[in-house]
Amino acid sequence: MTMPASGRLYGLGTGPGDPELLTLKAARILDSVDVVAHFAKRGAPGNARRTVAARLRPQAIELPLIYPVTTELPRHSAGYRTQIEEFYAASAAAVAAHLDAGRSVAVLSEGDPLFYGSYMHLHVRLAPHYPTEVVPGVTGMSACWSMAGTPVAQGDDVLMVLPGMLDEPELRRRLASAEAVVIMKVGRNLPRIRAALAATGRLDGAIYVERGSMDAAAVLPLAARDDAPAPYFSIVLVPGWAGA
Amino acid sequence: MTMPASGRLYGLGTGPGDPELLTLKAARILDSVDVVAHFAKRGAPGNARRTVAARLRPQAIELPLIYPVTTELPRHSAGYRTQIEEFYAASAAAVAAHLDAGRSVAVLSEGDPLFYGSYMHLHVRLAPHYPTEVVPGVTGMSACWSMAGTPVAQGDDVLMVLPGMLDEPELRRRLASAEAVVIMKVGRNLPRIRAALAATGRLDGAIYVERGSMDAAAVLPLAARDDAPAPYFSIVLVPGWAGA
Repeated sequence: MTMPASGRLYGLGTGPGDPELLTLKAARILDSVDVVAHFAKRGAPGNARRTVAARLRPQAIELPLIYPVTTELPRHSAGYRTQIEEFYAASAAAVAAHLDAGRSVAVLSEGDPLFYGSYMHLHVRLAPHYPTEVVPGVTGMSACWSMAGTPVAQGDDVLMVLPGMLDEPELRRRLASAEAVVIMKVGRNLPRIRAALAATGRLDGAIYVERGSMDAAAVLPLAARDDAPAPYFSIVLVPGWAGA
Repeated sequence: MTMPASGRLYGLGTGPGDPELLTLKAARILDSVDVVAHFAKRGAPGNARRTVAARLRPQAIELPLIYPVTTELPRHSAGYRTQIEEFYAASAAAVAAHLDAGRSVAVLSEGDPLFYGSYMHLHVRLAPHYPTEVVPGVTGMSACWSMAGTPVAQGDDVLMVLPGMLDEPELRRRLASAEAVVIMKVGRNLPRIRAALAATGRLDGAIYVERGSMDAAAVLPLAARDDAPAPYFSIVLVPGWAGA
């Protein structure tokens, strides 16, 4: 009796949410892969899963990877880290079981898999042991600035991507060293982001983009946006380039 | 006699070079658009044009936009700027003539159109006057880090995109304020980039990726790469994330 050859692992970028912004390569792989894994919160299918819903083959095995509920734990606490660590280890083991049985597995990843995506936690655990391919995708920030029609960076411009949950002094410090800035994970961080932009003289050019490329979308000057929590798929753009 | 309704302008991201990394949306638009415009150097079709070559319809009108030869002029000189300015104005006028005649025009743009792309020079001139849609694409840097299998940024990491032609003190200054760094436009700037990374203690983790996603590709530690000029489609990655 011989062991089956192990299956191939795909880190599959599904793009920013519009099913048409999937790449031809991602579509081809989805049409043939044995197992489709996706990260999700309990009770809510993830955005990547929603993006490819119409394209999933009925024969494909679905493997939802459900984040543990960690809302009561501070994000930098040891308890939080332990719980998240165990979750990624268990998720990698669940994917590995399929690969060991010879089944190919696509791990769906919103946007681009190696750009702030959960997939990379599986990648570092599995890629050393299985044939692995990462399929890049269109990022949420590209979709946002495309919808806004805002040239972002050109020539010598430095572009900085800032996670919105940084504290205000840290946001201010970083804002000082880039011409073009994209602030992601805006959510409940909007008042702090606004304060940091105002303090560094960059509020005037800042643009708020909500849910780029999806059905409900909005583009407005950040100065005209109130401080109510922003949806998950929102970013703030500070274009580096006003020229022609 | 009535004027025809003006045609629609598309800024069309063609992705990093692999024809399969085109989005479904870009493929659909290419299948129907009247005019396909693309930037090129004299005598050499651009990379975006090459990426979609097999997909161009014979009926489509091709509009090559040929960069002026500016190699003798310093990049920041007034002469250079004037010549480039005139080129973009003439290119916009050539595209506008088709739009005015009611023909739809796709301007091909390698990677993502509003991310360091020439398309944005047409966008700022034409988007105020014509129905315009920007179709985001997979960037060259995403293709590079996917090929390298290198998780780039996660959680609170700040990601910085640095053009390699910045001078060395400027490179050093910027390197100090980001966890993850992507250095683009490496070309002949490799010795200066290496010196700036060494001076800021970041040479060890740096990875050199050549022509991500295309036929000839290489991934190696920057420390193992000599100082010979790098091809245009090369980047240096300094991952921000070593965790799991």
